[in-house]
Amino acid sequence: MSDEQYRQEIAHLARVELHTPDPDGTLWFFKDLLGMYETRREGQSVYLRGYEDPYQWSLKITEGPVARMDHAALRTTSPEALERRVRSLQAGNGEGAWTEDEYGYGKTYDFTTPDGHHMSLLWEAEKYRAPEDLRSKILSRPSKKPLQGLPIKRLDHLNLLASDVTPMRNSFERHLGLRTNERVVDGEVEAGVWMSSSQLSHDVAVMRDARGARGRLHHVAFYYGVQQHTVDAAEMFRDYDITIEAGPDRHGITQSSFLYVFEPGGNRIELFGDPGILILEPDFETRTWTMDQIDTGTAIGGTNLPQETYFTYGTPPVPPEPTEDGAS
Amino acid sequence: MSDEQYRQEIAHLARVELHTPDPDGTLWFFKDLLGMYETRREGQSVYLRGYEDPYQWSLKITEGPVARMDHAALRTTSPEALERRVRSLQAGNGEGAWTEDEYGYGKTYDFTTPDGHHMSLLWEAEKYRAPEDLRSKILSRPSKKPLQGLPIKRLDHLNLLASDVTPMRNSFERHLGLRTNERVVDGEVEAGVWMSSSQLSHDVAVMRDARGARGRLHHVAFYYGVQQHTVDAAEMFRDYDITIEAGPDRHGITQSSFLYVFEPGGNRIELFGDPGILILEPDFETRTWTMDQIDTGTAIGGTNLPQETYFTYGTPPVPPEPTEDGAS
Amino acid sequence: MSDEQYRQEIAHLARVELHTPDPDGTLWFFKDLLGMYETRREGQSVYLRGYEDPYQWSLKITEGPVARMDHAALRTTSPEALERRVRSLQAGNGEGAWTEDEYGYGKTYDFTTPDGHHMSLLWEAEKYRAPEDLRSKILSRPSKKPLQGLPIKRLDHLNLLASDVTPMRNSFERHLGLRTNERVVDGEVEAGVWMSSSQLSHDVAVMRDARGARGRLHHVAFYYGVQQHTVDAAEMFRDYDITIEAGPDRHGITQSSFLYVFEPGGNRIELFGDPGILILEPDFETRTWTMDQIDTGTAIGGTNLPQETYFTYGTPPVPPEPTEDGAS
Amino acid sequence: MSDEQYRQEIAHLARVELHTPDPDGTLWFFKDLLGMYETRREGQSVYLRGYEDPYQWSLKITEGPVARMDHAALRTTSPEALERRVRSLQAGNGEGAWTEDEYGYGKTYDFTTPDGHHMSLLWEAEKYRAPEDLRSKILSRPSKKPLQGLPIKRLDHLNLLASDVTPMRNSFERHLGLRTNERVVDGEVEAGVWMSSSQLSHDVAVMRDARGARGRLHHVAFYYGVQQHTVDAAEMFRDYDITIEAGPDRHGITQSSFLYVFEPGGNRIELFGDPGILILEPDFETRTWTMDQIDTGTAIGGTNLPQETYFTYGTPPVPPEPTEDGAS
Repeated sequence: MSDEQYRQEIAHLARVELHTPDPDGTLWFFKDLLGMYETRREGQSVYLRGYEDPYQWSLKITEGPVARMDHAALRTTSPEALERRVRSLQAGNGEGAWTEDEYGYGKTYDFTTPDGHHMSLLWEAEKYRAPEDLRSKILSRPSKKPLQGLPIKRLDHLNLLASDVTPMRNSFERHLGLRTNERVVDGEVEAGVWMSSSQLSHDVAVMRDARGARGRLHHVAFYYGVQQHTVDAAEMFRDYDITIEAGPDRHGITQSSFLYVFEPGGNRIELFGDPGILILEPDFETRTWTMDQIDTGTAIGGTNLPQETYFTYGTPPVPPEPTEDGAS
Repeated sequence: MSDEQYRQEIAHLARVELHTPDPDGTLWFFKDLLGMYETRREGQSVYLRGYEDPYQWSLKITEGPVARMDHAALRTTSPEALERRVRSLQAGNGEGAWTEDEYGYGKTYDFTTPDGHHMSLLWEAEKYRAPEDLRSKILSRPSKKPLQGLPIKRLDHLNLLASDVTPMRNSFERHLGLRTNERVVDGEVEAGVWMSSSQLSHDVAVMRDARGARGRLHHVAFYYGVQQHTVDAAEMFRDYDITIEAGPDRHGITQSSFLYVFEPGGNRIELFGDPGILILEPDFETRTWTMDQIDTGTAIGGTNLPQETYFTYGTPPVPPEPTEDGAS
Repeated sequence: MSDEQYRQEIAHLARVELHTPDPDGTLWFFKDLLGMYETRREGQSVYLRGYEDPYQWSLKITEGPVARMDHAALRTTSPEALERRVRSLQAGNGEGAWTEDEYGYGKTYDFTTPDGHHMSLLWEAEKYRAPEDLRSKILSRPSKKPLQGLPIKRLDHLNLLASDVTPMRNSFERHLGLRTNERVVDGEVEAGVWMSSSQLSHDVAVMRDARGARGRLHHVAFYYGVQQHTVDAAEMFRDYDITIEAGPDRHGITQSSFLYVFEPGGNRIELFGDPGILILEPDFETRTWTMDQIDTGTAIGGTNLPQETYFTYGTPPVPPEPTEDGAS
Repeated sequence: MSDEQYRQEIAHLARVELHTPDPDGTLWFFKDLLGMYETRREGQSVYLRGYEDPYQWSLKITEGPVARMDHAALRTTSPEALERRVRSLQAGNGEGAWTEDEYGYGKTYDFTTPDGHHMSLLWEAEKYRAPEDLRSKILSRPSKKPLQGLPIKRLDHLNLLASDVTPMRNSFERHLGLRTNERVVDGEVEAGVWMSSSQLSHDVAVMRDARGARGRLHHVAFYYGVQQHTVDAAEMFRDYDITIEAGPDRHGITQSSFLYVFEPGGNRIELFGDPGILILEPDFETRTWTMDQIDTGTAIGGTNLPQETYFTYGTPPVPPEPTEDGAS
């Protein structure tokens, strides 16, 4: 293993854009329930940030005919890291282009994953500077925790569905320099991978799409930092008619505390309590879960992730097959 | 409504005796995992108490051929209350007898519920006095929190299965003076009742036995007082091979935080986090849940109580019907 | 000990009226930060309730020249209990009068404590009925948890300062039938008592006024039910410029989790996390703390309650003595 | 800013050796109360690890005449990073030597900080492999959480006292490549710095020694990952006669939850709840606290860090100056 392999090139997930057929419902969810600040409104899009998100926005909500992820952007650890990653992507597959058209961010390299997701890499990000009345006394906090709903701190990670997990893992390892912290194998087939290059348990996860579709989103996760807040959030969602899919509980994979719900537009959102395992060892060995261990892997407590949605529903939804029950 | 109806006659659940076919496993569960103190050992029985249980014991474990509850005893709020309750029971049904043969307790009135459970009423209870080295600096705490496992504080409540809930509720209301705080109705049929005369959400609950059996135990609950400890307990149970049935989550009924497991002998045990609603209004009106509200009633979070066990399994187990799956 | 002594006659603290010289600040504190609902506005007064308070209001904020408690009212467990308690008060001291002029409550007996506090007893209280949009799916919850600030559930208890604690205790024991659960003695002098007749650790506490003043308020406490929420509240108070006096920590006395702050008008308010010890034994023996045990009594964690405020400041404030430092 | 400046060269704090004049007391503290596993005993030393520490040991307890830190070792992110860091240290100051004599670790570079602390850098670390009965079902967990006391997960960070903070910061920035995330300035003087190169808020902190001594330890911190466990720990320490200095509360600096105690040998130990801020931005700008902001910096809740110990006591203790009160 060479020195380069230990180098952290991807800092974190900087922003995600979601499409929603119900923009009013989706904005009510993120602003009124999850306490995100609106920082800009332009055309069919609204830009939002959690009170600890460092940049101008971490979530862009755009009206569209169908719930789906438009794109997600990872920030590199330096301008040179961006150049290295783009060169690797270009060497690996031809698709990709530089753009520079998003509010609050500079030049950005857009590319397509082997399964067809739109992703981006960028270095240039404008730091958010709070106006006087939103400034927090806690100096590492870019803005005050608002008094609205149960405010999430920040965007945390991305979980993608893929028709084939292995090419995704290979591409993210090779071109982005991500480390595979944990994986699930079902016989010979990779059923899921959890990847990061930071100390987080994952910045990006990829799970097998049981519907066989390509390029779909499983969920976007937002960070509370406190497990109790996922319990509080479940109570809020219950009383304000947001469908809870599963949780609060704790995954064995990543040891993180989770709560899954569907925002009114139909995208699955995870509320993430404490971060679970922090990967401090630079030579952390990939943990591989087999199907006989999967009960502990999916939940340490009593949760059974619902087969009819958790492993089949993603956005954009795909038409159900004739004989199938379930949400999609 | 008369003055007498507001009188609290039953103080709390003082003790439970469980039978187990696996006494070593059951004692390991209660002592090593749940940190209960052993206070006596006699014949086939071991007497245990949590570190905040006020008397000599709250749980007696007795070896026996089948997992079941031998009896449970409620303590009255005064000697006179005991007399009043016994007179009422005697007026209501002939079965019952005074005994005085349990370590740490005085004269006790044993009776049988309409569904056949063995229960007792008593006033005389010997207070536990800790030896010097077990004395806590926290004066309301009868003994130090031990350093073993994840210690429960004390016995909390009892949940009984009954072939017919309504006669149980009638008897407990009339003869014990319990208040029905919440109930579930399935059309015309009472499916469950949660009763207390204290500020607790329930000292005794009764749920319909889906197997139609008589006199069974659903679960005995022990109190942590802190929701996080049910999360910690789930992790402990997972890694020490105790089957988790459901939770941690929070019931809508009673608002209490729950975790259900099976002790190695087969009895279902609930770990109870924070107490949920405390009933401060003396004229609290019974809340009635209908089946269209039952999702929130059973869990505020995403838990689906497992049909194949939660509503059918009790102790003693009954033989499964030919076409049925499930634990019993 | 007679049967009567075990009878619970006082159900709970139903309402408190506070005066404030800064009504806008005080209302911002209770409504915007603590998420209380406003249920009425009349003259110089605003009526508020927490989302689990059972009646029309639990807190009345009235503009006045100086921060102080106007009165506090306890609800009895039955109409007959009210009659018995009033007869006892009348036999004990001549002052007192029936009134019937408060919104949402019926006839009320007003009396004066031996130290001069205005208190009331009542039975008739109008239950709050939420309009459709504020109704909770959790049936024991009288209204939805609001999305504003960090909402408290309900009023919890009252802590009074007294120039002499013992006559207060004697009066509350004799005339109200309260049980003294815990007390602090400083040599021969009672320095504090914590009293209830319910399972709560205290509905009313009385502490010695180090300034020797009569009839002052130490604090009014509001209930979260979850210890984490006192941590969340401390962070909110810090960033929104509310002075934190002490906490979050846990008292040894009552085992309850506390956070003390001053509302903008100057009254001390306690945010109460989990309830601490629940007194299930009807014959609970009073725990007496001596001054050598007081460190554990005041805080289980590292908090030192600040001498210059906690033991001397109350409302109404009294002029400082010439040589003294401190908040008053 | 060059590419190299974003490179993470120091992975984490791998191990600490403490000296204690009371080895029985110190081992009881770490094993019985904090649930650390003993992995080796040799001469006057015992080697311990928390259940999530990845290597053979993270804490070595050695009998000695006075409480102090013998040394602390940081692990680099790669073998090449070790070489680069050693070359930089050697270029910067002449002292330092390669050794290879510690159980479970390979060749190690020992050096002395500008203030005289003994520190080490290493890459080679033997991973801990649990025997069958200690293996956890949670695959990222190197061993089962034990059933003893309130087990910490792992070693977290180091806080050093220094007679002069600035040379320490300069040396750690220049030679170890650490990033200064937060600092406190008292006029022109640096009073404290919190440094890491990972996403943790700090691996090493340095605070001004108010006694002016050189090369002392302020504290070693161990990680729970859950804020509630610091509350649980405070209760345990209180009842088992461990002196609590301050907390549980949350620092504004780093946003981390803290509890400070003194182990029986006299070294200050921090129990660390949730990790506080995770530094995801690679270009995180150092936050500088001035003395007028220090109240929020030291604690978000009501804690006043005790002047007479927190800012003056360190190990080894130094003789008190004639006019001074306090612990040392």
